[in-house]
Amino acid sequence: MSLILKNVRPMAGAATDVKIENGKIAGFGQNLTGDTTEDGKGAILLPGLVEAHTHLDKTLLGMPWYKNEVGPRLIDKIDNEREMKSVLGIDSRRQSARQIVQSVSKGSTHIRSHVDVDTVHGLKGVEGVLASRDEYADIVTMDFVAFPQSGMLGRPGTVELMEEALKMGVECVGGIDPSSIERDPRLHIDTVFALADRYGKMVDIHLHEPAELGAFSMELIIERTAALGMKGKVTVSHAFCLGLSDDAYVGRMIEGLAENDIAIVTTGPAGRPCPPVKRLRDAGVTVAAGTDGMRDTWGPYGNADMLERAMLVGLRNNFRRDDELDIAMEVVTYGGAKLMMLDGYGLKVGDKADLVVVAGETIAEAIVNRAPRALVFKHGKVVARDGACLKAAP
Amino acid sequence: MSLILKNVRPMAGAATDVKIENGKIAGFGQNLTGDTTEDGKGAILLPGLVEAHTHLDKTLLGMPWYKNEVGPRLIDKIDNEREMKSVLGIDSRRQSARQIVQSVSKGSTHIRSHVDVDTVHGLKGVEGVLASRDEYADIVTMDFVAFPQSGMLGRPGTVELMEEALKMGVECVGGIDPSSIERDPRLHIDTVFALADRYGKMVDIHLHEPAELGAFSMELIIERTAALGMKGKVTVSHAFCLGLSDDAYVGRMIEGLAENDIAIVTTGPAGRPCPPVKRLRDAGVTVAAGTDGMRDTWGPYGNADMLERAMLVGLRNNFRRDDELDIAMEVVTYGGAKLMMLDGYGLKVGDKADLVVVAGETIAEAIVNRAPRALVFKHGKVVARDGACLKAAP
Repeated sequence: MSLILKNVRPMAGAATDVKIENGKIAGFGQNLTGDTTEDGKGAILLPGLVEAHTHLDKTLLGMPWYKNEVGPRLIDKIDNEREMKSVLGIDSRRQSARQIVQSVSKGSTHIRSHVDVDTVHGLKGVEGVLASRDEYADIVTMDFVAFPQSGMLGRPGTVELMEEALKMGVECVGGIDPSSIERDPRLHIDTVFALADRYGKMVDIHLHEPAELGAFSMELIIERTAALGMKGKVTVSHAFCLGLSDDAYVGRMIEGLAENDIAIVTTGPAGRPCPPVKRLRDAGVTVAAGTDGMRDTWGPYGNADMLERAMLVGLRNNFRRDDELDIAMEVVTYGGAKLMMLDGYGLKVGDKADLVVVAGETIAEAIVNRAPRALVFKHGKVVARDGACLKAAP
Repeated sequence: MSLILKNVRPMAGAATDVKIENGKIAGFGQNLTGDTTEDGKGAILLPGLVEAHTHLDKTLLGMPWYKNEVGPRLIDKIDNEREMKSVLGIDSRRQSARQIVQSVSKGSTHIRSHVDVDTVHGLKGVEGVLASRDEYADIVTMDFVAFPQSGMLGRPGTVELMEEALKMGVECVGGIDPSSIERDPRLHIDTVFALADRYGKMVDIHLHEPAELGAFSMELIIERTAALGMKGKVTVSHAFCLGLSDDAYVGRMIEGLAENDIAIVTTGPAGRPCPPVKRLRDAGVTVAAGTDGMRDTWGPYGNADMLERAMLVGLRNNFRRDDELDIAMEVVTYGGAKLMMLDGYGLKVGDKADLVVVAGETIAEAIVNRAPRALVFKHGKVVARDGACLKAAP
C-alpha cells in the first residue's frame, strides 16, 4: 500500500507531493503514483511533533473538574497528589490513554512521559502507561522515565521499585532535586547514575533547584555523565538554574552540557528563570520542550499542543523574528527526537512517515495560529484528521 | 423586543435563565417570558471581556505574512514600523476593523486601543480607528489613547498632533518611557499631564523602563496624579518596574498607586519582570490586561482572545488554585471595566447586556480550555456565535 500526500509544503517551503510507502517517506515530487491519495491543500508539512516531557499517569483529563486548593509549598503538592490518586481514582492506564489521544490529535507522534514510582502506589503508574503503550503503539511512539516524585532516599523501598520499573521496560532513570528534596545531592545523583549504568538506561532528571543550588546539582550531573561515558544519554528537565544571572557561570555550565551531549527540556515557564534556548542551541546543546503536567492536581493548564508549547517557549525567550520562531519549531520537533534517540526521524526520503500537516504560510504562522491539525500520520497511516484523533479515548 | 437566554451559569454558578430587554439585563430566574430565546446549554455566563491594551492601528491581520528580521533594539522596532506603515500599506481603518471583528468573535465587548501619533503619519491612525469606532459601534465599545510611539519631545510637532487627536475625540493622553526614550522624564510627564488636565482627558502611559529607572518614572506619575487630583483617571501600562526585586520599594509604589487609584495593565509577559497581580489586587489596585500589539511588525503573537490572555497572566503569576484563576478572570473583565470607567458593567439586573457565553465547568476551566465563544451579546443583541462574529471584516 502506498499513499500520495498531495500539495504540502515541507517546513513551509515549496509545494510538492509526497509518496508514503511501508511507513516511510518514499519520495517527493510531482506525478508520483500510489494506491490512495490525501489532499494537503498547500498546508505546511512537519515531522511529527515531539512531546519530550509530560506526566501521562497523572492527568485528570476527562474526569470531573478538580478544585485546586493546594498549599503553596512543593511538598504540599507532592503529598496532596499522592493522596488524591486514591481519593479521586486517578487510573494511570485510563488517564494516559486519554492524554495520548489528545496529544495525537494535536500532532504529537512521539511522547516521553515521566511516571511516578513511590512506596504508596508502587508500580501501578508504570503498569498503566506500559499497557497504554501497547494499546496505542499504532498511533504514537513513547518512552518512559521512572520518576521518584515523592523522593527516593527518604522513602526506603523506592530505589528497588525504580529498579523493578527498569526491568519492566522503562527506558530512563528519573531523578528529582538532589539537594532541596533529596537532602543528599551526592548520594541521589550517584544512585540515579548507578541504576542507569547497571541496566544500560538513559537518565532524565527533574531539576527545579534555582540559581547556584541548581547549578551545583548540574555540575554533579555533568561530572557523572563524563565519568560514566554517558554522552548523549542524559537529559535535565526544567534546569531553572540555567536562567542564573551570572552570565559566566551559565557559560561554564553550557560548555559542560555541550561537551557531554546532555539535553535540556524546557516548558518555557513564564514565572521562573529558565534555560536560554537560543544560547544553548548556539552552543550545540540539544533543547526539547514538553507540556509537563497537564490538567492535574498541580495545576489546571495545558492541552498537549506542542505548537502552543512552541509559542510559550517563544514568548519566554522573546523570540520575535521568523528565524527565532524557526528555533522554537526545531525544539518541538528535532530537539525532542534527538533526546529520545529516535532513528529515521525527519523529512528526508527514507525517514519514517510520522508527519503533521497544518495550515499556515510560514513556520512562525503555524506556531502563532495553531490551526487544527489537518492530518497526522503515524507509521505512514492517517491517525488524526481535522483536529480529531481517529482512535478513541476511554 | 426581549430575549430569554436560557440555561446559563453566571460566573460558573447555578444555572438560570436571563431576560434581556432594551440592551440591559432585565432579570434572572425560571419561567421568564420574552419575544425570542437563545439556548445557553448550561455554559458559563460572563460579562463581556475587556481588551484593555491593544494597538488596533498596527496589526497586520489579514495581510500577507510579514517576515520579521528586525534588529534587537527598541529603536529598531520603532523606526522599522514607521517605515513599514508606508511600505506595506498598513491602513488603520481596515486593520482596526479586522482586529475588532476578531476580538468580538473571542468575546470582547470593550476595547481600549492606543493609536500612534507621529510627525510622519500624522493623524491617519486616529482617523482610521475613529471611523472604525463608528462603523462597529453596534458590536463593541472602545476608547482610544493618543500614543507618541516614536517619542514626543524629540520630534517637534508631536505634542500639537496629540492635542489635535484629543480634540477629535480621543479619550486618553498617552505617554512613553520618560527617561529611556524621551530623555527628559520631568518634561515628558508634565507635558502628558498638562494635556490631560487642559482637555479633561484620562492618561495611559506605556512604561517599559525596568527596575529603579521605571520606578522613578512611576513616582513622578504618582506625584502628578496626586497634584492634579486625577484619581481614577490614570493608567500605567506594562509597568515592568513593579517586578523589581526590592520588595519594600515595590510596596511603596503599590501604596502610591492604591492611594491615587492608578490602574495597571499587564500582558503577563513571560520574558520580563512584571506587576505582581495578586499583590496589587490585594492592595486595592485595579489591574487589567491586554493583548498589546497583535501580529504586527513588532512580533507575530496574539489572537485577541482575552481568555488566552487570562491564561498567560495566570502562568506568569504562578496562579494554580481555582481562587487564583478567578483573579485572572477578574482582570480580563471587571479590572478592564474599572479602568475604562464603564457604567453598568456586570451581571446584575440593570447592567448592560454585554455578555459572553462559554463552555466550561468552572471559571478556571473556561480559561484553560478556551472553548469557542458560544454566544457574544452587545447592547443586548447576539453579535457572535460559535466563535464567529456576525459582522464581517473588510
